[in-house]
Amino acid sequence: MMDSITVKKEIVKFEDGQLIDEEDLIVTEYPLTIILNQQEFATMVCTPSELDELVIGFLASEGVIRFRDEIKSLHIDSGQGYAYVETVAEVSTSQEYYSKRFIGSCCGKGRQFYFVNDAKTAKTSTSTLTLTPEECISLMNEMQQSSTIFKDTGGVHNAALCSPTNMIVNRTDIGRHNALDKIYGHCLINKIPVRDKVIVFSGRISSEVLLKAAKIGVGIVLSKSAPTDLAIKMADELNITAVGFIRGGKLNVYTHPERIVQLQDSFENTP
Amino acid sequence: MMDSITVKKEIVKFEDGQLIDEEDLIVTEYPLTIILNQQEFATMVCTPSELDELVIGFLASEGVIRFRDEIKSLHIDSGQGYAYVETVAEVSTSQEYYSKRFIGSCCGKGRQFYFVNDAKTAKTSTSTLTLTPEECISLMNEMQQSSTIFKDTGGVHNAALCSPTNMIVNRTDIGRHNALDKIYGHCLINKIPVRDKVIVFSGRISSEVLLKAAKIGVGIVLSKSAPTDLAIKMADELNITAVGFIRGGKLNVYTHPERIVQLQDSFENTP
Repeated sequence: MMDSITVKKEIVKFEDGQLIDEEDLIVTEYPLTIILNQQEFATMVCTPSELDELVIGFLASEGVIRFRDEIKSLHIDSGQGYAYVETVAEVSTSQEYYSKRFIGSCCGKGRQFYFVNDAKTAKTSTSTLTLTPEECISLMNEMQQSSTIFKDTGGVHNAALCSPTNMIVNRTDIGRHNALDKIYGHCLINKIPVRDKVIVFSGRISSEVLLKAAKIGVGIVLSKSAPTDLAIKMADELNITAVGFIRGGKLNVYTHPERIVQLQDSFENTP
Repeated sequence: MMDSITVKKEIVKFEDGQLIDEEDLIVTEYPLTIILNQQEFATMVCTPSELDELVIGFLASEGVIRFRDEIKSLHIDSGQGYAYVETVAEVSTSQEYYSKRFIGSCCGKGRQFYFVNDAKTAKTSTSTLTLTPEECISLMNEMQQSSTIFKDTGGVHNAALCSPTNMIVNRTDIGRHNALDKIYGHCLINKIPVRDKVIVFSGRISSEVLLKAAKIGVGIVLSKSAPTDLAIKMADELNITAVGFIRGGKLNVYTHPERIVQLQDSFENTP
């Protein structure tokens, strides 16, 4: 039987100078092993929800598949924590391919760091979507308000796929990358066009987070937190607008600020 | 030449209804590849400081070495981002060994999840150290105050090794595990006894963080954030006291509360 997303646990709380017994809500950390064409491919620890989206999004993110229909069968044994995947075509699952360091002039700008599969799957954005700063702030607020698990347990990341005005899907996971993989899987399963959408994310924009967004195919990433310099370099080259520190009515635009426009500009620039 | 820990970058800031150009401080994300006995072993992205500690701590954490003197030579090419390590004895670097899922009754309590190398290297704590709640709060405050990078860039994790009354060493990294590996490496290089020490950590206690603490060898882990249920199960079995949500003068003790004692108990229970 699948574990639930949170569990109750007796803890000892220190408050007002006293140690007292209390019941607390703890976030579940669930190991899931993917068996790909009868071979062990990867084990991830995750929040046990939307496991089909997670598996499909992860395999797409790793470059194993590009579309949902490249998977012939997907069976999840949630009790044992195994996902059995059969693909239509044969795929290479060589460790070398998936974890080897790759250095090259990927994007015509000299030395840059990617893993081999990232260089293959991360797409340069062709999105013409623009957002106002107010829309960025409003989407971040909407995502934050919709997530109750974080408030209860303090231990998860949230990712959402949004249109300029609406949140389309919101996913939660203890693993930052898992939350994005669930979004990716959701898009593939439901054939959602992503070029005119935005990723909204609760955590820091690391290079891995930025690459996930590029693989999903969006042109704008909104984060509550800070980006790293490597993520900024990649966003620059992959033509992605990275917006961070969306809090308290403020935000920072780190790359491709042409997509973040104030209302008067918006009218002038509308394609 | 090694990148610095932070870099300056021109950004566009939205504040008080205006988009303005501004200079911001961005945290560096640096790829480091370990070449172990002439073979590519792993690539991590990290904050480029104390790379020798990081490499040694990582190799110990992965079960490749147990002591500093098992390494014959360590050369870091910080310009290219490579660490060349030669060990005294031959070591197994089989991918199977390091990433394969391992399920067994590790600790005599039925099904439990570890990777193979974790089951080999995570130690059951024999620490008899106790702390008062006030000491926990004070150590967390001391670590937080000593870190300036987080305040500047909002993008890093901090880990510290402490005695009950003092912070001994504090390490910062964009990767939560890297910060702990740097602490581990520092302990091995400087032969610091850890049984009577505490790990203080800025981030969530996941199973991986808990296992790192067990490998380092401490009996108490203090966190500003929440633990996961899997981390709690492991802490329970490995005899580690996990304390979380240390903020605002409060804290939660999740496992082995016998090590967190108020002053009157402390006198009675001193061994």
